[in-house]
Formats: sequence, C-alpha cells, structure tokens
Amino acid sequence: MRIAVARETEPGETRVALVPELVGRLTGAGYEVAVEPGAGRGALIDDQAYVAAGATVNENALHGAGLVLSVQPVGLEALRFCAPRAATVSFLFAGQRAGDVAARQAAGITTFAMEQVPRISRAQSMDALSSQSLVSGYRCAIVAAGRLREFFPLSMTAAGTVRPAQVLVLGAGVAGLQAIATCRRLGAVVKGYDVRAAAAEEIASLGATPIDLDLPTLDGAGGYAREMSEDRAALQRERLAPHIAAAHAVITTAAVPGRQAPVLVTAAMVAGMRPGSVVVDLAADSGGNVEGVTAGGVVNVPTADGLGSVQLWGGSNVPSQMPGPASRLYAQNVVNVVQLMTRDGRFDPDPADEIVTGMLVTHPSLTTEAPAVDPEVTP
Amino acid sequence: MRIAVARETEPGETRVALVPELVGRLTGAGYEVAVEPGAGRGALIDDQAYVAAGATVNENALHGAGLVLSVQPVGLEALRFCAPRAATVSFLFAGQRAGDVAARQAAGITTFAMEQVPRISRAQSMDALSSQSLVSGYRCAIVAAGRLREFFPLSMTAAGTVRPAQVLVLGAGVAGLQAIATCRRLGAVVKGYDVRAAAAEEIASLGATPIDLDLPTLDGAGGYAREMSEDRAALQRERLAPHIAAAHAVITTAAVPGRQAPVLVTAAMVAGMRPGSVVVDLAADSGGNVEGVTAGGVVNVPTADGLGSVQLWGGSNVPSQMPGPASRLYAQNVVNVVQLMTRDGRFDPDPADEIVTGMLVTHPSLTTEAPAVDPEVTP
Repeated sequence: MRIAVARETEPGETRVALVPELVGRLTGAGYEVAVEPGAGRGALIDDQAYVAAGATVNENALHGAGLVLSVQPVGLEALRFCAPRAATVSFLFAGQRAGDVAARQAAGITTFAMEQVPRISRAQSMDALSSQSLVSGYRCAIVAAGRLREFFPLSMTAAGTVRPAQVLVLGAGVAGLQAIATCRRLGAVVKGYDVRAAAAEEIASLGATPIDLDLPTLDGAGGYAREMSEDRAALQRERLAPHIAAAHAVITTAAVPGRQAPVLVTAAMVAGMRPGSVVVDLAADSGGNVEGVTAGGVVNVPTADGLGSVQLWGGSNVPSQMPGPASRLYAQNVVNVVQLMTRDGRFDPDPADEIVTGMLVTHPSLTTEAPAVDPEVTP
Repeated sequence: MRIAVARETEPGETRVALVPELVGRLTGAGYEVAVEPGAGRGALIDDQAYVAAGATVNENALHGAGLVLSVQPVGLEALRFCAPRAATVSFLFAGQRAGDVAARQAAGITTFAMEQVPRISRAQSMDALSSQSLVSGYRCAIVAAGRLREFFPLSMTAAGTVRPAQVLVLGAGVAGLQAIATCRRLGAVVKGYDVRAAAAEEIASLGATPIDLDLPTLDGAGGYAREMSEDRAALQRERLAPHIAAAHAVITTAAVPGRQAPVLVTAAMVAGMRPGSVVVDLAADSGGNVEGVTAGGVVNVPTADGLGSVQLWGGSNVPSQMPGPASRLYAQNVVNVVQLMTRDGRFDPDPADEIVTGMLVTHPSLTTEAPAVDPEVTP
C-alpha cells in the first residue's frame, strides 16, 4: 500500500508530516512511501533526502494512495485520486471544521485526527499536541529572552551585580512547563501559575515558584483544565495583577488548540507593567490569553506611567517557527500511529483499540460524525 | 563642583553614563550632579528618576560643569560652556579620532578614555570594555538562539530525543566566555577557540570543549591576543573549517574595540554550513570576523548545496541593544573612576596613579597627545 506525504498548503505552515530519517520505519513495515515535491522545503528538507531514504518523490504522490499523512488536513479535492476508502492522518480540529468533516464523511474517507490521540500512557509517543507544545514552549521562552533587553541570569561582575529577570508563566501544561524550564536554564527567576492542582508541584520541580491565588483548582479530563466561571476569572485576574506588574516578562500558555483561550491578562494589567517589559502570548491563535493581542504580530502597549511601552507578542502557529524539530517530533508521532494501526503487514486499525476509536472522526461505516471531545473539557 | 551627564547624540547610542541609583554616590562625595533632559530615555530612564535621586535635570547641565560624563565622547562645541580646564570621562577610541584629540588638546580639556583603563586587578571595577563585553556576549548568544530554528538543549520526549544544537564560539575574551556560558546554560553543545594559551582552560571551565588547532598561541599584553601572520591566519581558517561546517551556530567575538578585526571565517566557510545555520559576528563594527558581514544587518548567504541559506548577523553597538543593564554597568565603572580621582573631597586625579595616567589622553599640561595603547597589541 502507498503512503503519501502531502505538501502543506496552509499559509505559514512550514512543517512536514514525515522526515527522511523515518521513511525506513514505513518502508520496513512493507509500505511504499511517496512524497509530494517540495513537501519538506519549509523545514529545509530536500526532496533528494527522501529519495535517498527510500521514498519516491512525485507530483502524483497521492494518486492511488491508501493513507495520506499531513500536518494540516488535506482538502477533499486533493484526496479524490486516492485509493477508494483511503485514510488520512493529520491534525483536524473538527470543532472548527464541521463542514469539512461532513464532506469527508460523505466522500467515504477515513479520518484520524492527531489532536484526538487519548492522553493515556500507551499513546504518549503519538501525542502530537504534546510534542508540538514542547516546541512552542521553548520558542516562547527564547522569544521573551530576545525581546526583553535585560539579562535573564544574575551576573556577578567586578562593577557590581546584574539582577536576574523576573518571568511569570501562566498555564503549566507541556508548553508552559517547557517555557519555565527554558527560562530557568537561562537563569531567570520564574513564577508559574495554573488552575490545576497538580501543576504547583511540577512548577516547583523545575525550580520555579508556584503562585497560590487561594482559589479553588479546576482539574478537568485528560489533564486539561476545566472552564471557569466569570466570577472566578475576575478574581483570578485581580490576584494575578501584582505578580504581572512585578514581572519583566510574562508568558501565557493557557490554550487547548481548537478552543477559545481564556483571557488571563487584561489590557490594563499589561499597561501596568514597567516600560520595556515583554508579554508573549502563545494562545493568540485561539483568541489570546492577553487582551489586545494580535496573532503573528507585536503590539506596543503604552505603559500607564507614560514612560514607554510593553511589547505584546502574539504567537501564530508557533511550532512552524521551528519547522525542523517540530516536523521531526510530529513525524515520530505519526509513524507511531501508523505502526499501531498496522497489523499482519497491512494498514488495519483495530476498532477495539481506544487510541484508534479516539482518533477516528469519519469512516464509511459511521453514519454520523464521531462524537467530539467531551464538551465540558475546556482550556 | 558640578558633574554633568550628557545626553548621547550618536545615532543608535541608547546608553547613558549615569543611572539614578548611582547619583547618590556622587552627591554623597560632595558633587552637584546635573543631567541633560532625556539623557536616560534610550535606557527607559525618566528624568524624574534622576531628580528623585538628587540630581538636577536641565538643558544647560554642561554650563559651568567641571566634569562631563558620557558614553560616546562629547563634541567640543558642547563643551565650550564648561568650567575652564574641565575634564571628560567617556569612551574615546583615540586611534579613530586623531582630529578630535588634537582639538581637545588645543582647547585645554582634560580627557580620560574609558577604554584605556589598565587591565590590572585594582581597576577591574572601572573596566568598561569588560562590562560592555559581558552585555554583548550575552546578547550574541540570545540572538543566535533566537535566529536558529533548532533547540539549543537536548530534549527527551515520549516521541524521541531532540538533539542539542552545536555552537562554536571564536574568541574567548569576556564576550566570548559570556556567549559560551549563555549557550551552555541553554543546553547547547559548545566548542570554543582562542589564540591565547590561557583560553582553553577558561573555555573548558564553562563546560565547553576547547578546540586545539595545533598552532602556536599568541598571547599579547593586557590579556589580549597578538596579531597573527597571514600564513598562520590561513592555516587557522583551514583547520577551523570542519568545526564551522559542523556547527548550527557560530558566534565570533575576536575584536578589541577600535581595532580592525581579523577575518576568521571566509565567505566560503559560511556557504559550507548547513541551511538554516546562523552566524553571529560581534566584531562587525570593526570590519568583522566573518567575510561579507554587515554591521547592524542580516545577510542571507546561500549555502553551497543550493538548499537554503545561512543567516549572517552583524552586531552594531551591541551593548546599546540592552541599554538598561549596559548603562547600569557602565555607570558603575564611571562612578568608580570618579571616586578614584576624588581626593580630599575634590576632583583631583593623582598623576602618580597608573590608572589615571593610563586613561589620560589630553591635558593642558601635555604638549603632545598621550601615547596610544602599545601598537603591537591587536585583536
């Protein structure tokens, strides 16, 4: 059976779903691998590298393919030359693409969504949300360090001591913890906050100080946070305000892809920071944790003291800013999924496996859309 | 006596020679401190902060001043209302400003050059070349981490291991060592090279690997390197080439301000790096350690394999990219100089002190320019 690797078409998407070093895992399992020309260009991977690894590269890679791998979902038009009842593995975010899902269902395509890999330990190696969050979290910390024109580390010099920067990280999921770890590596004094009970210990384990706002915790399913009431959100903002005012850099990561992000920081809280401060909002793509943020842009917010401004950086497809490592990790996740779904030398997902059923969004045998994630679980 | 703090006028200069928290050191010693309005603006320091610290802020700060503090040298025109036989303390780089020096001498001004503070242990707290190099070295590492779209640290994930970046630092003076330390903090695998014998141990002490090119060392006066012959330089480039090709990021810091920097990396060596690599040249202001560099700009150099390009970043007044910490450290150096030159409650530099004589460039009693630094000592 042919596995096709699609060239991404979404603007700004630089990742690729398979990297040359993993081609052998698929050909070794008996698959033919065909890559669309230029698929790796955004990640600086040459077509020849795929060929050298045992794949073919051709414009008609999807023709007759039984399985199509991509980062963003491939459009129906591009799938029409695939083998009958072909399957796709990619991010889908079905909640945002209800129309696409219905059309895929009608076209008899089997769709597996990478963001629906269950958060169970057996599926960790397939968890692309986590692997891409790792990339985002690192990148956010580096962006904050680059935009802040202060030292992150403490420096002892003959002329005196340079005090370390104060960094506040809001949201301590995979991205937030990676941001904390990276800021700590650089020597900043880091505080972290998350609404989940388990987060405090994880924040502390990285050498940061967990903030306790004396509010009830909000643990939801799958390790994510539950949605909070507007009363609690207002109280949370009020109690976070002094911590934000004290920080040189704030990094917000309270987002679950595909959901509206909660506003953790108001415009007034940003304006209350000192001139030259930096706010990095990883959740900008889903509305932002920070009021006034622009995804993919930098907004200079004048400070309330009139002496300068705060740089408010909004992330947009942040993993695509590090396409090499993001692609390598994503490809690893995807190949592990394909391997799980390969039985007796064929692509044959086990309908009794909760990972398979968790990822399945459309299938010829399904008469309606598969249920979305529990609607109570929100960022 | 009035000490004036000048507002910098050189384009791109964001530092200021005195910060509010050090005003008290000068007023406590009996001086009046007057600051030109907006002097701290580039470093985000408000006029009011100087006033609150006990200084006055006014447009005529230099009128009647006996001592003028600045980062870049103040022009003669601005000095004409100072007290007779006024003194200045600033960077001067007399070698590049022969005309200025003669005019200052003719005008009867006493000029102390911060870059001529002797490299002796008693003068360490006045060594502004070192303090500003510390800032530059940190900044170069952060720029490299921000431009390279790979992880600096090794990451172990459920989906596999992300390999750490390979960084090569050329020149292991204060800036180079700080760049090494910062890259190591971030988890990169770092190699360092310097022509001086003592450097290997310092490089190793920071967790980096000193490169041995099997060439004679070149130790000069004051801890700087001696100039090398063109034969040796060619051999050095040849033997460095494989290390450069293996690096994801190269940071070059082989410069002494005011001197022409040696070319350590040719254009061909840059083109031989892999696509997406980053070269950060701290020496770009003095011609560059890297062929083809532009001070204050980024040049995308196509790679020899035709698959992408290398980003070649040229620093221009790099300390000004971090004006807050650079100003605080510089001000500390300057205040320590003033303190040294204050005897019996007056500004009265001791002509028998080697720090005073080392820094002195023009003085009414000198009939010719003071000798420049030993011309054999070069980067």
